[in-house]
This record gives sequence, C-alpha cells and structure tokens, in this order.
Amino acid sequence: MTNDDDTSRDPGAFRARFASFVRSTQDDIVRAIDALDPGASFHEDTWDRDGGGGGRSRVLQDGDVFEKAGVNVSEVHGRLSPDAAKAMGGGQALGESALGFWAAGVSLVIHPKNPFQPTAHANYRYFERVADDGSVAAWWFGGGADLTPTYVDADDAIHFHRVHRDACDPHDASYYPRFKTWCDEYFRIAHRGEGRGVGGIFFDDLHGEDRERDFAFVRDCAGAFVPAYVPIVERHAGAPFEARHTRFQQLRRGRYVEFNLVYDRGTVFGLRTAGRIESVLMSLPLTARWEYQPEFDAGSAEAETIEVLREPRDWLT
Amino acid sequence: MTNDDDTSRDPGAFRARFASFVRSTQDDIVRAIDALDPGASFHEDTWDRDGGGGGRSRVLQDGDVFEKAGVNVSEVHGRLSPDAAKAMGGGQALGESALGFWAAGVSLVIHPKNPFQPTAHANYRYFERVADDGSVAAWWFGGGADLTPTYVDADDAIHFHRVHRDACDPHDASYYPRFKTWCDEYFRIAHRGEGRGVGGIFFDDLHGEDRERDFAFVRDCAGAFVPAYVPIVERHAGAPFEARHTRFQQLRRGRYVEFNLVYDRGTVFGLRTAGRIESVLMSLPLTARWEYQPEFDAGSAEAETIEVLREPRDWLT
Repeated sequence: MTNDDDTSRDPGAFRARFASFVRSTQDDIVRAIDALDPGASFHEDTWDRDGGGGGRSRVLQDGDVFEKAGVNVSEVHGRLSPDAAKAMGGGQALGESALGFWAAGVSLVIHPKNPFQPTAHANYRYFERVADDGSVAAWWFGGGADLTPTYVDADDAIHFHRVHRDACDPHDASYYPRFKTWCDEYFRIAHRGEGRGVGGIFFDDLHGEDRERDFAFVRDCAGAFVPAYVPIVERHAGAPFEARHTRFQQLRRGRYVEFNLVYDRGTVFGLRTAGRIESVLMSLPLTARWEYQPEFDAGSAEAETIEVLREPRDWLT
Repeated sequence: MTNDDDTSRDPGAFRARFASFVRSTQDDIVRAIDALDPGASFHEDTWDRDGGGGGRSRVLQDGDVFEKAGVNVSEVHGRLSPDAAKAMGGGQALGESALGFWAAGVSLVIHPKNPFQPTAHANYRYFERVADDGSVAAWWFGGGADLTPTYVDADDAIHFHRVHRDACDPHDASYYPRFKTWCDEYFRIAHRGEGRGVGGIFFDDLHGEDRERDFAFVRDCAGAFVPAYVPIVERHAGAPFEARHTRFQQLRRGRYVEFNLVYDRGTVFGLRTAGRIESVLMSLPLTARWEYQPEFDAGSAEAETIEVLREPRDWLT
C-alpha cells in the first residue's frame, strides 16, 4: 500500500481534521434529532479508553419521539494484538508489522417510539496502521447508513436510498451500486433469512490514490444522513398506532438485537476486546420482544414486511 | 474411547431408553409448571429436522405467572460436517472419522413475570458419534441447571444448589463441586464481568466406564429440577412489586439475551448451522430492556445483586 509522503511524515494534521469532522458530524446530527423531540434532551458524557484515547457519547433516552438515540464519537490509538490485526478489514497485507493504530469515527443509532417511524443507523470511520517509527503504514475509511423500518414503506426506502445515491454519484458512479449491495449483504440476519431492514450504503477498506478525495466522499455521505432521515421521521410524526403495531415493533427490535449481538463486526469486536461496553451496546433498543412462533395473517402489513425483507430490493429502479 | 460391546452392536435399545427419558422429563416438568399457572396452558408443536429426526416443543407464553416457559425435546441424527465435529465437546479424538451422530435431549427455560421469582434453565442431553458401519465410536452426556434471579435471594440460591448437590453426591462426591464451578465458568457474561445468575451445575463430555451409571446420574439431576425450582416459585408467589422492580427485571432480561446470543454454545451452534430457529431462540425472554448506563443507588437491592454476580459464591459453605 502506498501513501502520499505527507501522510507518513506528519500524520497529526490529517488526524486532527478527521477528528474535527466526526465531532462536527455529531453536533449536526444531535442538533437535528434534538429539534424533532423538543421535550427530551441528549445526555453527554466523555470517557477515556484504557490504552489510549477516548470518546464523547450523547444519548437521548425515553423521549416523546425517540425511545433511544445515541450518537457517539471516539478517537482512539494504541497497539493491536496480532489477532486483532489479522481480523480487521484494511491493511491485511501488513500482517503482524505496523501494529500501532490510530482511529476515529462517529456512529449513531436512532430508535423512534412510533412504529411507523423507522430506526436508522450510520457510522463513518477512519483507520490507520502505524509502524514503529510512527509513520502511517496503511490507512482506510469505512462507513455507511441504513434504515430499519418496523413496517416497510417504499416511499421512505426510496427517499433514503436516493439521498445517499445523490451523495455518492458525484464521487464515483460505481459507488452507490457497489455500496448498496454491500449494505444488503452486511446487514443480513442469516439465521432468519432476512435483511435487518431496507438497507442503504456500506463500505469498508476504502483507500484510493488520493486520501483527500476519499475524505470528501465520506464527508458527503455523513452530510447525507440528516436530509435522508429527518424528513422520514417528520412524515410519520403523529401517525396513529395501536397495540398490534407496537407488538410488531417490539418483535422487530428483537431482530435488531439478534443482528447486533450475533453479526455486527463492531459489536462483536467490542465485546471480545472488552471495549467500553456501554458504548458498544448503545445501539441496542430500549425494549425488545421475542415470542415463540409469532403468526401474522397472510396479506397483513406485518406479513408483507417480512416478505419484503427476505430478498434485497433495488429501490431506485 | 472404549464402549461396551452392546453399545456398539445394537445402539437402538439405549437410544430408545434415552429418548423415552427425555420425553417423560418433559412431561413431568410441563405438568409441574402448568400447575403453578392454572390460567395458562402450554402449546405443543412437533417438528421435523431436515437431515433426520425432530422434536416436540411445549411453550407457555404470557400466562398469569409465567412470561414465557418453553420445554423442548429433540431426537436428531445425521452427519456432522468436519468443522462441526471439531467444534463439539466430546469425541474430539475421533477427528474427522465417525461423522455420523445421534443425539437427544431435553432443554427448558422458564421466565416468571414476578421479578421476585427467578428464571431457571436446565438441559440434559446424550450424544453419540457413529462410524460408517453404524457402530458407536464415542458417546457422552451433558447437562445442568442454573438459576437467574432478578434480585439475588440467598435462601433461593442455597435451596437450588442443595437439591442439586443432593442429586450429585450419591453418584460421586467430586461431581457437585466440579460441576458447580463449571457452571459458574460457563454462564459468565465476560463483557459485563458478571455471572448470568447464581449458577447451579453444568457438565459436558461425561463418559465413564459404565454408561448405565452415568445415565442414572443424569436421570437424578433431571429429576432434581422440579424440587429445586418449584418451591422457589411458590415461595415468592404474589410478592408485591412495582415499576422499579419490573425495570430491573427487564434490564436483567437484557443480560440474559446477551449471554444466550453471544456465549451460549447451543444457541451459537444452532444459529450457525441454521437449526430450527424458533426452538434455538425459545430460551429468549418475552421482553427485555437496554438502557444506556443505568444507575442504581449504592446499597440498593439492585446494586447489591450486581455486586453478588461479579464473583461466584459458594452457596453451600
């Protein structure tokens, strides 16, 4: 892997810019979510990581509109175990050399109360493998955003995908189709034979010729989250619902827990490496439900959602 | 591994006896639980397994006393993948030979509604690795029972352990101490630094000189479940509780989900091999809750329970 000279010699400047980007992304998203739930407010706490770095978590819990919304930033550094280095996405060619690392990212999960307002998740991150002399031996970006409705609403899915496609296309026409498919494959609950939701975009190990170009792409994706999600939440504000809808929402929350605890790489990695557990599990919903063999009438909205989730769909064609 | 001649030549007779034992254990436990919740009833369904065998599930959901109680038996056979053979407990010396298998077991999880009535789990099983000529190349038993209170109650823990110790001691004085420790180690939620509950007994790969002797031990353990658990449920019947207790119960249910989805070998194996998902996940509670950084007053019953769960305790000394 090649790096521009500047990257290797003075990594500090870019790191500071990326850290500033994740913090301002957190600010922007928290402001937009806060405005949707005037009666509630985010609780902030900062934390240090054993081994280097730390983070700032902002969580809104049991609001009027949101059951739980967490927006977390972290900036961490230290030394990888050889196993961890092997397990991670980028920089695999380095093997057990360059075990130093520096990483920063913003991640968020938003679970609304109303079953007609979907859950959303996004995460954008930058990772460096660092050689013993302090130079950057490899760097890459990763991230994405995806939508998990209780009830699939095609208009919502189309809007969410369109805004993300419009963020991708100016950078590379191949990005949206590739990252849309990657998202469908990643957020798959294999044991259920279902997608977690209606997808979005997902990418990892993004490392082109020009780091600035990749960073500009990541900035545009992160900037797409608010315009992709907030109008969907607004559109369904105050939608009437009853016990039937809440029950299905809680069952779908259970599926969300299954995905995150069984398949999500960040969560599984965080649990194995004893990361900061409260932050690792911030993504879990406030409440969830598991019934034995829940049944839904053929043709009901519940049965239809389950059917749609079986096969990924191209929302924009 | 040696086997008595009878085992290798005519495995059918023992299998039939073990299958009969798991079914009658299911009957006994369902009867005892049913009697505690007269307004509710178990729903039974039988299912076939692709590849050989099947099971009979009995589930009580949303009763007056029990939130969810599932008692499942299965009798399955077929061929292991080499990976599955390597991953399992007993018969490892066989490597990739004798990939046929026959297995049967009973497993149950009971989640009461009242936060002062603890959750209980038990599982007893018998496994054979079968050679291409149909002879039994290895056999072993596994099982155990453990108690997961919302609020730790020392009297309950002592009673549950004592009944199981009394079932173990006549067979081998070393069993209870070994299997009690094994249980504490197995039901550990590593990322929380907590035990799932107050333990009980757990054993695997049990294979002595005399299969009848081992079977008699397993029968006595399984027979201990009702006298170990039912008096605890009865003791706390009608105990008054309020929102504070239900909240803590729901958070503890969340921990239960974390253990089962992240660590429990049977669950993880079932999810990976696409077993019958509804049976694999029958153990999950009906409802669960995850708050970000829940806080409890120092000295409260909640804080005390979390403290007790940090370190396994010898309840009988």
